[in-house]
Formats: sequence, structure tokens, C-alpha cells
Amino acid sequence: MAAVTSVDHDRDRDRVPKQDRSRATRQRLLEAAVACLAEHGWAGSTVSVVAERAGVSRGAAQHHFPTREDLFTAAVEYVAEERSTAIRALFPEGTAGDRRAVVAALVDLFTGPLFRAALHLWVAASDEEQLRPRVTELEARVGRETHRIAVELLAADESRPGVRETIQGLLDMARGLGLANLLTDDRGRRERVVTQWASLLDAALG
Amino acid sequence: MAAVTSVDHDRDRDRVPKQDRSRATRQRLLEAAVACLAEHGWAGSTVSVVAERAGVSRGAAQHHFPTREDLFTAAVEYVAEERSTAIRALFPEGTAGDRRAVVAALVDLFTGPLFRAALHLWVAASDEEQLRPRVTELEARVGRETHRIAVELLAADESRPGVRETIQGLLDMARGLGLANLLTDDRGRRERVVTQWASLLDAALG
Repeated sequence: MAAVTSVDHDRDRDRVPKQDRSRATRQRLLEAAVACLAEHGWAGSTVSVVAERAGVSRGAAQHHFPTREDLFTAAVEYVAEERSTAIRALFPEGTAGDRRAVVAALVDLFTGPLFRAALHLWVAASDEEQLRPRVTELEARVGRETHRIAVELLAADESRPGVRETIQGLLDMARGLGLANLLTDDRGRRERVVTQWASLLDAALG
Repeated sequence: MAAVTSVDHDRDRDRVPKQDRSRATRQRLLEAAVACLAEHGWAGSTVSVVAERAGVSRGAAQHHFPTREDLFTAAVEYVAEERSTAIRALFPEGTAGDRRAVVAALVDLFTGPLFRAALHLWVAASDEEQLRPRVTELEARVGRETHRIAVELLAADESRPGVRETIQGLLDMARGLGLANLLTDDRGRRERVVTQWASLLDAALG
């Protein structure tokens, strides 16, 4: 998504001020959309509500995102990409020194406003034909990227039998832990489960 | 929930026909409520819609369940109890002969209409103050019962360090697999993950 990559503002201000402003507007809309979805769910999330929250006119919002589906799927994808970048930055050495820390960071991907927003979108898509193919495709893409990150950071060798499924199960567990955290603060239990599963994983991955 | 236990209709018909009819009505309402929630989500699930689906008058429905929250939390609890009973019945010997089969059955608890209904209720509760404490309490109760079943059927010794967290992580994984199945049929992948984690679990539980 080239339109949301960061820009060197100082250098570009005079040359492309319009494109710059457009990028900033787009980014504000995406962030407002995720926050709105996380707080109010799909039913309470419309282009107008997000435009107001972002301080942008409805017309400008619709210029960037013609439909409600465009806005909210782009928003979840944008924040997912931001979080992918952030988790890679946490482990710049690329491979696993400390698998417990990697598992904890992977599990953290499934908490907070992004996960709440994605969950609302996901559940809404299960009932709405218009939303379903978009979200299915988005989830597959985000899921593949998360799997890739997990394999890299855990230094897992997927050519060995069972390793791929071990990582998949770990990410399913992370998703389930995210769901368990939705209504109550589940941090204490989550940390104990992470410690135990990180040690099972360590043994399984060798 | 004494009111929903099965009744020997032949024996009781003459003696307590009214209570019998009332029980049958209640049960029809609970089953219609879960189906409605699974298909239409929280926003599309009202007492009137369920009453119509169950072929019961709105007044009769409200006699059994004064509020919308009463009806839907009771419905999810009722179906969860039915499924708990069913999974215990699958393994009458009580302990684990075949851990792969037990893990598969536990994972199955988080698929189908019950899981969809519970998920809709759960996500709605995260935004609605009126629903939240009810669903939090319900989830805790159902979660404890599911954990108890898993410990029993896997013959897990929770006095050993890490075993409790191993089982908790397994149930989180099952919940995450359920979520992954919401938009697409994830059966093939799920079976491979179940096979792999059942074998890791077998090693961990001894």
C-alpha cells in the first residue's frame, strides 16, 4: 500500500504538498476507522462517523474510500501492516534468541484495538454477503504475513514434518487468547499460558 | 437447569401436562434463540423474532424470559450444556484412550451454530454495558466446565507444573480455530493442526 508509506515531509513539502496532505488525510481516516470499529462495532461504524472523528469532510472521505467496505477493510489492513512492521523491528536480529519473547509478541498482535476492530469486521462479515469476500481475502493475506513473521522470528524449519502445523496451532492459540481478553483483562492467565506453550514450542522446534 | 432436563412424557402427561408444555415451550425458545443469534447476529436477534421462529406468542416468550438478555444468555448456556453432555457421552470410559480423538472433539465444541451464537453474543457484550456482566459471567462458567471436561478426558494431572496452562492453551487454540472457521470452511487445516498438537500434547502430558 504505497499510499500509506511514510514520507520525508521536510524534503517533499514544497514539491508535493497536495499529495502529502492527501496522504495525511488518508492516514487519519484509516486510524479513525479502526478506533471507531473497535469502540462501536460494525453497526456503529459508518463513513460519516469516521470522517467526523478524523476531522475530514464526508466528501473527502468518500474521495479516498468510495464505500464503507473499502474504508474499513483498508483500515484493518493498514493497522495490521503497521503492527507487522513493529513486531519485526522488535527482533532486528531476525532469528530467535528468546522464543518466549517472540511468542509473547505474537500473542500481543491479537490484543488491543486492532484485534477488536478486526474481530468486529470478521463477525459482521459472517452475516453480510457484501462484506464477506473482502474480509475473507483480507484475513487470508494478513494471516499469511503473520505466519511468515512467526516462522522467521522463531527460526522454524518448515521443511521438517509437523513444524508448519505447530506454528499454525500457535497462532490459533494466540487468536483464541485474544478472544478471551475481549471482555475481561486476561493478562495474568495469558502470561502463564504463553510461558508454558513457549516451552512446548521450544521442545517441538528443537 | 432443572427446567430443561428431559421428561418422561408418557408417564407425566396426565399428571403435569401444564409443566410439560411449559418446558417444551421453553426449550423451543432456547433452540430458536441460538439459531437466530447464529444466523442474524445480536442486532437481528430480538425476543419477537425468536418467539415467531419458535411458534410461540410474544407474551409466552416474555413469561419465560422477561428480557432479551435473559433469553439469549440462557440459550447459549443451554446449548453449551447440551454439548458438554454430548462430549462426555462420546468418551464414556472417562479417561483418555485416544488423545487425538479427545482433542478433535474439544476443538469441535468451538464450531457450528453454538460457537457462532456465542461469538455474536460475546462481541456484542464488548460494546453493550447491559449485556457485558451477564456474558462475562456465562463465559467464565462455561469455560470452567469445558476445562474440567478437557482435564478429565485427557487424563491430565493438574498437580504437575505446567499441565493446567497446557490445557488452557489447548482450549485457547480450539477457540482460535473456531474463529478461523467462521468465514471459510477450515476443516482440512484444522485436522492437520489437531493431529500435530495432539501429539505435542501427548508428549507434554506423559
